[in-house]
Amino acid sequence: MPEKIALGRYVFERLNQLGVNTVFGLPGDFNLALLDHIDEVDGVRWAGNANELNASYAADGYARVKGLSCLITTFGVGELSAANGIAGSYAEHVPVIHIVGVPTVKATKGKLLLHHTLGDGRFDVYKKMFAQITEKAVTIDDITTAPHVFDEMFRTAYVTKRPVYIALPSNFIEEKVPADLLEDKIDLTLGPNDPQAEEEAVEEIMKMTVAAKNPIILVDACALRNEVQDLVAQLADETQFPIFATPMGKSGISEDHPRFGGVYVGVLSKPDVKEAVESADLVLSIGGLLSDYNTGSFSYEYSTKNVVEFHSGYTKIKSAIYNDVKMQWILEKLIESLPNVLGDYTPVDLPASPQAYKSLVVEPSEPITQSFLWNRVSTFFKPTDIAVSETGTSAFGIIQAHFPGQVIGISQVLFGSIGYATGAAAGASFAASELNPNRRVILFTGEGSFQLTTQSVSDCLQQYSTMELL
Amino acid sequence: MPEKIALGRYVFERLNQLGVNTVFGLPGDFNLALLDHIDEVDGVRWAGNANELNASYAADGYARVKGLSCLITTFGVGELSAANGIAGSYAEHVPVIHIVGVPTVKATKGKLLLHHTLGDGRFDVYKKMFAQITEKAVTIDDITTAPHVFDEMFRTAYVTKRPVYIALPSNFIEEKVPADLLEDKIDLTLGPNDPQAEEEAVEEIMKMTVAAKNPIILVDACALRNEVQDLVAQLADETQFPIFATPMGKSGISEDHPRFGGVYVGVLSKPDVKEAVESADLVLSIGGLLSDYNTGSFSYEYSTKNVVEFHSGYTKIKSAIYNDVKMQWILEKLIESLPNVLGDYTPVDLPASPQAYKSLVVEPSEPITQSFLWNRVSTFFKPTDIAVSETGTSAFGIIQAHFPGQVIGISQVLFGSIGYATGAAAGASFAASELNPNRRVILFTGEGSFQLTTQSVSDCLQQYSTMELL
Repeated sequence: MPEKIALGRYVFERLNQLGVNTVFGLPGDFNLALLDHIDEVDGVRWAGNANELNASYAADGYARVKGLSCLITTFGVGELSAANGIAGSYAEHVPVIHIVGVPTVKATKGKLLLHHTLGDGRFDVYKKMFAQITEKAVTIDDITTAPHVFDEMFRTAYVTKRPVYIALPSNFIEEKVPADLLEDKIDLTLGPNDPQAEEEAVEEIMKMTVAAKNPIILVDACALRNEVQDLVAQLADETQFPIFATPMGKSGISEDHPRFGGVYVGVLSKPDVKEAVESADLVLSIGGLLSDYNTGSFSYEYSTKNVVEFHSGYTKIKSAIYNDVKMQWILEKLIESLPNVLGDYTPVDLPASPQAYKSLVVEPSEPITQSFLWNRVSTFFKPTDIAVSETGTSAFGIIQAHFPGQVIGISQVLFGSIGYATGAAAGASFAASELNPNRRVILFTGEGSFQLTTQSVSDCLQQYSTMELL
Repeated sequence: MPEKIALGRYVFERLNQLGVNTVFGLPGDFNLALLDHIDEVDGVRWAGNANELNASYAADGYARVKGLSCLITTFGVGELSAANGIAGSYAEHVPVIHIVGVPTVKATKGKLLLHHTLGDGRFDVYKKMFAQITEKAVTIDDITTAPHVFDEMFRTAYVTKRPVYIALPSNFIEEKVPADLLEDKIDLTLGPNDPQAEEEAVEEIMKMTVAAKNPIILVDACALRNEVQDLVAQLADETQFPIFATPMGKSGISEDHPRFGGVYVGVLSKPDVKEAVESADLVLSIGGLLSDYNTGSFSYEYSTKNVVEFHSGYTKIKSAIYNDVKMQWILEKLIESLPNVLGDYTPVDLPASPQAYKSLVVEPSEPITQSFLWNRVSTFFKPTDIAVSETGTSAFGIIQAHFPGQVIGISQVLFGSIGYATGAAAGASFAASELNPNRRVILFTGEGSFQLTTQSVSDCLQQYSTMELL
């Protein structure tokens, strides 16, 4: 690599280091020069979507599989079409880096009546809009600090699990920056927990565990976003507590896990699952996100007040909040500590309904019901599948399907934008092909939702030699 | 009509009075109850678009033909997908009424973690975003004032020629309002000009006209938006000055008008048109909008400083601004006054190039060039056609086509969002069918742009028994 490289190349070198191997978006005259640098970086490819909404959904789907993604659009006309997708990523804690090619600093200062502006000299409007739906929104304004700003924004997206917005004036793209900046990798590690608060919290949770006869674990959306699935499984292994998932937490624990008890959705749960969760005398809730669709319209009815919530930035025990006690570190501590206080605990039986698909009897003469469909689909899944389901019938239905092995479920349960699933499936297909060329992405959608973003099918065709429409 | 009607019905009764006979948008659970009221109003129909971006483009296209339009979306996931279309309407001065069905006042106050929210209790985010790209954004918060607020917002859109945003909490839709409010029509008339300022401006323009040997009229975008085409034609009739159009002003004057001289785009003009405009010693510019694409990248080169600009809110003579001298009224005054001071004026010859298509000779062996195409297309147009051209090759090319009779040209020259034209054509098709069932809408686009909003084709199919793909 030369000593100095263009800022445009720097951006893609960094993304490559972060495992972002596909870049989504559309060309436009304020980002064309940037896109030309993709080819300079081995390991990064351009997806080239059909429109920006689909691109933003694709970036969201990709990030849910690979942990981070990048979307590139152009000033005004491009970026605004991605607003819905970015807002969804914000709502659902998905880290998408949105880079927007914008007019030069000179044109901006001159308030020129350029195309793609509102014609009134306000060049900062779009950034102001995106500031509302991203963790942070910045404009690159100095080539000497630009690499640092990009690094910081990439880190912010990764650590906060939220989208960020970077406006890149086109005059900076070819400006040179030192290549050796790339030698220091971007630090993505979390800071440690507050040791005193963590110790108190662990002690309190141990006390509650000793007293509990019937504790459960409930895994939710932010366990997936914070990528603690392995810790969740270890916690279930070590404690043998029954473990349940919410709709947004589905695939936070392998459903082949011997202690997996089913999906809990308040009053919409299977009766035996509802009973098992609501009769617990201690609930360890990991990454909870209590939206209406995720909770059966807020119908949780725990009989106990002994609820411990593990979040990305804090832990809450009953009403007490322990700030700066992040789920990653305290779960590690509990996996070590809890087995020592489980002397009296006898593992309870699990609900039977989640395994009902195994005994499914099919009579060809009977009508195909939703219940039949989703049970039957359970036998179709392979352990590495990625199952994307659309808001509505598909997302509600798939709750009752069994995900074997490491199946990843993707659904926009909180934000619930129809059309999302098709775009997200396209993005997930790029991620899947990077992880394992045989990995399947399966989209469940309705014909109404499908028409919103149908172009996404063409976006992902290059990923597959075969595609089946069922 | 009963004495009291639901607010939902009131909205559509008012739209009907304003000539908005088609409503664009998509259903969603916060606007469903509103949409149910459309059927109660004879003369208003639901377009039912495939996605919100396409719906917003359709509403823009409809408003450019009929003078006002309405788009209905749902909270968050719906409205945000329309952001690009609404921003375009703002930039290009197109009055679109955007009504968004939002959660109830109770849910909003309770900051419930509802679907379609960002999950953080901020229910006002989307309105804040749209406040940046609309003339005015409001939330209905009281049933007693709601009819008045709707009336005011409808008037604001019409008078300012900009989009407005109205968030309608779903709890108000079925609330009753007095039906007799509908008897007083919404006042859409402009206030009068400042009489003193107008008199001074008219006097000054008359002086300049007496001194001029070679005055011209240049018609631009806002002449169309303010619907002064008849006054523009009368001014040309009465003065016999050559009249030119900008790309955004194309169809502001019939190109069959005996004094129509061609389209002026700075350095991109035909040489004889460029010479005719730039050698003028008085330019009467009506509704000027000086964006880069509209001016050949800011390449106007008038040899005179005698430029009079007529705008919707003021008139500018050389450097002097006459506030509150609106184009509508001062043009009427000038049509009366100017003929009296034209004693010495001899009408100059017009450029020949705009009529060149008439002598076009076609040799089947020759390649089809852009120049050939657009000249040839000129003979294909019928006088009532609506010609929609996409940003890029189509919009640049159509400048040289001849529009006969009352052809309406639609192109998003300033904002320049690709994909716009297909959606706008769909919207224009609804407007056209309301004006004259035989009126044709002709879309010029490229295969790249077409893929962004291709669903719009299905949106407008119900308008036509035949559709031709050329």
